[in-house]
Amino acid sequence: MRRGVLKHRGASLYYGYVEDDGIRCCYHGWKYDCSGQCTEQPFEPKASRLKDEIRLRSYPVQRLGGLLFAYMGPDPARAPLLPRWDVLVREDGKREIKMFPTHECNWLQIQENTADSTHTFFLHGVMDQKLGLKHPFAPYYRRPIEKLEFSYCEWGIDKVIVYGGDVPEKEIRPPLIFPNILRIPNGPMEVMHWRVPIDDVSTRIVFVAFTPARDASVRTREDDEIPYTYLPPMKAQDGEYDLKTFFSQDQMAQESQGAIYDRTNENLGVSDRGIVLLRKMLLEQIERVERGEDPTVAVVRDPQRNRMIDFPGITSPVEGLKRIAEAKQSA
Amino acid sequence: MRRGVLKHRGASLYYGYVEDDGIRCCYHGWKYDCSGQCTEQPFEPKASRLKDEIRLRSYPVQRLGGLLFAYMGPDPARAPLLPRWDVLVREDGKREIKMFPTHECNWLQIQENTADSTHTFFLHGVMDQKLGLKHPFAPYYRRPIEKLEFSYCEWGIDKVIVYGGDVPEKEIRPPLIFPNILRIPNGPMEVMHWRVPIDDVSTRIVFVAFTPARDASVRTREDDEIPYTYLPPMKAQDGEYDLKTFFSQDQMAQESQGAIYDRTNENLGVSDRGIVLLRKMLLEQIERVERGEDPTVAVVRDPQRNRMIDFPGITSPVEGLKRIAEAKQSA
Amino acid sequence: MRRGVLKHRGASLYYGYVEDDGIRCCYHGWKYDCSGQCTEQPFEPKASRLKDEIRLRSYPVQRLGGLLFAYMGPDPARAPLLPRWDVLVREDGKREIKMFPTHECNWLQIQENTADSTHTFFLHGVMDQKLGLKHPFAPYYRRPIEKLEFSYCEWGIDKVIVYGGDVPEKEIRPPLIFPNILRIPNGPMEVMHWRVPIDDVSTRIVFVAFTPARDASVRTREDDEIPYTYLPPMKAQDGEYDLKTFFSQDQMAQESQGAIYDRTNENLGVSDRGIVLLRKMLLEQIERVERGEDPTVAVVRDPQRNRMIDFPGITSPVEGLKRIAEAKQSA
Repeated sequence: MRRGVLKHRGASLYYGYVEDDGIRCCYHGWKYDCSGQCTEQPFEPKASRLKDEIRLRSYPVQRLGGLLFAYMGPDPARAPLLPRWDVLVREDGKREIKMFPTHECNWLQIQENTADSTHTFFLHGVMDQKLGLKHPFAPYYRRPIEKLEFSYCEWGIDKVIVYGGDVPEKEIRPPLIFPNILRIPNGPMEVMHWRVPIDDVSTRIVFVAFTPARDASVRTREDDEIPYTYLPPMKAQDGEYDLKTFFSQDQMAQESQGAIYDRTNENLGVSDRGIVLLRKMLLEQIERVERGEDPTVAVVRDPQRNRMIDFPGITSPVEGLKRIAEAKQSA
Repeated sequence: MRRGVLKHRGASLYYGYVEDDGIRCCYHGWKYDCSGQCTEQPFEPKASRLKDEIRLRSYPVQRLGGLLFAYMGPDPARAPLLPRWDVLVREDGKREIKMFPTHECNWLQIQENTADSTHTFFLHGVMDQKLGLKHPFAPYYRRPIEKLEFSYCEWGIDKVIVYGGDVPEKEIRPPLIFPNILRIPNGPMEVMHWRVPIDDVSTRIVFVAFTPARDASVRTREDDEIPYTYLPPMKAQDGEYDLKTFFSQDQMAQESQGAIYDRTNENLGVSDRGIVLLRKMLLEQIERVERGEDPTVAVVRDPQRNRMIDFPGITSPVEGLKRIAEAKQSA
Repeated sequence: MRRGVLKHRGASLYYGYVEDDGIRCCYHGWKYDCSGQCTEQPFEPKASRLKDEIRLRSYPVQRLGGLLFAYMGPDPARAPLLPRWDVLVREDGKREIKMFPTHECNWLQIQENTADSTHTFFLHGVMDQKLGLKHPFAPYYRRPIEKLEFSYCEWGIDKVIVYGGDVPEKEIRPPLIFPNILRIPNGPMEVMHWRVPIDDVSTRIVFVAFTPARDASVRTREDDEIPYTYLPPMKAQDGEYDLKTFFSQDQMAQESQGAIYDRTNENLGVSDRGIVLLRKMLLEQIERVERGEDPTVAVVRDPQRNRMIDFPGITSPVEGLKRIAEAKQSA
């Protein structure tokens, strides 16, 4: 990965010509190797050494599960391993990628939503009723919440929710993965959302879903090309949200906080302690990096640990939904 | 009416759930009563007193003629009466509401147009001829203007225009209603325009029309639901105005002054004294309010005076149009 | 030509009514003569002298080849002649005008492209191959460049390119015309591009093409009305360029430098000396004007010299293309 700006006369390398051993600018043909070093300047004199002085900042790229990842830290030699999340590397089914429409807010507002275990009740469960949407997961989230647990873990923050009501359940959610990932079981799909900052006030959500297949012939290798689609906007040109999906409901709640949410005016309660933990973790990890130390959360260095990172103990909402349906029928 | 910002974690109350005795935030279900006091926080401990500290700024709302009005002054106890304009409360006909496309300029440029009695000749009367539009009112405005009168009144500024030519007439217009209302007889319709600032550089015009009916069975009560439509844009994406209606002609003149018109470069003439009066009135009233005094224009406190505010002495252009048509036929 | 702002109450004269001896504002009918002097204020008292004080800045306009040109220098009496470029005044064929979509960058980035003789190889020649476009001129630009020559001339900068390869050629290009014109032979058409700043960060390209006709009956007089079209955008709403035409390829290279290209980070090579010459010429001419002296480049004062300005010695790419096609067939 190279910064998208050419150092000759400023045109973008985005439209550059990719060659086997580098990329060539389409404006004047200057070529850069994978380290960012300029290696050819076709119209400069043969004896010219100008190219030796031209070097773009570059980052080594790794491909996994259909995505490209770059380590952008200070010293590539100290780079941790690229975490091999199950959603990216499982082979026993089908993988797909969805690019969400740009969210017009800071990435942290989106990630805080993942530390916010109670929002699912009103924003998804109740709104589903109000709008008559009949989302299959809505009954799961409409159960009374009796207890919330949050704790630090190696990946970020572990979350447990205890539901009461007719169909009580202790739901062990996948951890919030620090700093910017949501991991969620989504019906038959196992899903991750990467909340990637475009800039301080806009964020791209990259959604990867893996659907396990019963048929052993349906397989996806971790280095296969994965089909991807760009989702259409979930709000109208006048700014109204459609609210028909959980995604749109979340986007509304996150964006309506403002482009960069001013947290000086908020009022956190006891039920917001997941958010407090996330902010503390973020500040602690920033301070470590500022001191020149390695971050400690969701950093994988042991190849053995990294064969595949999965979350075997998490609750499958599909089971809970079945019991809710059964209770309704017998009622 | 409450400010659209929730004091928990900043999501908007715009999409809140309206309940009988308040509104509930759709993000985490915090509920606020009509005074803005937070009364429920479903996921906080029962013993928590956090909700007692949470109070949104709120304004009492009154409904009239299909619109909601709020008094946003400093002390609701000193609020004047909501003026019962005839267009809002007449029952002997049909009422309708149109929301104009956003005007990309400061509200005062739009209101100054109402103090500008001569603009109708060239902007509406002559342009109608130039573009071959044949608007029924254009001949009315194409008569030579011989005299203009402006004077302060209890509602704002009274306006009289004396036309010469073949069909002379002394037109008594409805007053400019201070600070931001146009009242105008519009053919069979009696009309008001509220120029409501969205922010310093954009304005929403809310248009209410009442059409008296001869048929006594056509009635509209002041608290009836009134049908409303959002008008489509009156200019193309490249910024060109269609100029086919008086509304579009006005919008062009108002917006082309700039987002906030720099009045230091203008040259007012004798015919602009309506505008001078409006600006003086505005400054005087602002100074009163800054001194902690009540404003004095278009402020109604006497319920007797407020049964219905109408303007019985104003000239009906329909009569003038008839005489113009007769003069044309006999010529 | 008058500045588009009215000095009465700020509405634009863009929609003014053009009359035989001036223009009338459509808002209140103030009329201005061709010198910018206000001559009528229909609603002011007859005795008023207000209009004597109102004068718009105005520039005399000349019409040539379907365009209107204004001299906006300090003293109209010292204005040079309007250059009679062949593309504007030739009569032995057909003339047409195309208005390009707004380029979202400073005009100088576009003009530097004309001093940049090598960009045609990769940006047009090679991209044509990569995208399979088969533009007829692409093979001409895909020949190896062996030598570049740049020199000052009376119009701006003379440019020569020496191609090697199977079909060598010394191409004498039309000069870069200072400060903002591209002159280029374009197949059967002879073409000029005026890069007209809209503001610092957007530019309108006005394209005029003259196609000589063999049929002597096809004639266009220099004062004929010329048909013009507005070209549709060459990039999608998400900012992606279509790259299907040389125009789109150029726009991408020019705009991707940024709205105003920050030249402090660039690295110019020997092959960029045309750009260096252009910048030097621009600074020199700016300094002359700042000292109150006349500019010296592309300034015509001798009517004899100005009968028609053409470039008889320039190379026709059509001939080169024929030889390239012949070489390919015989190979």
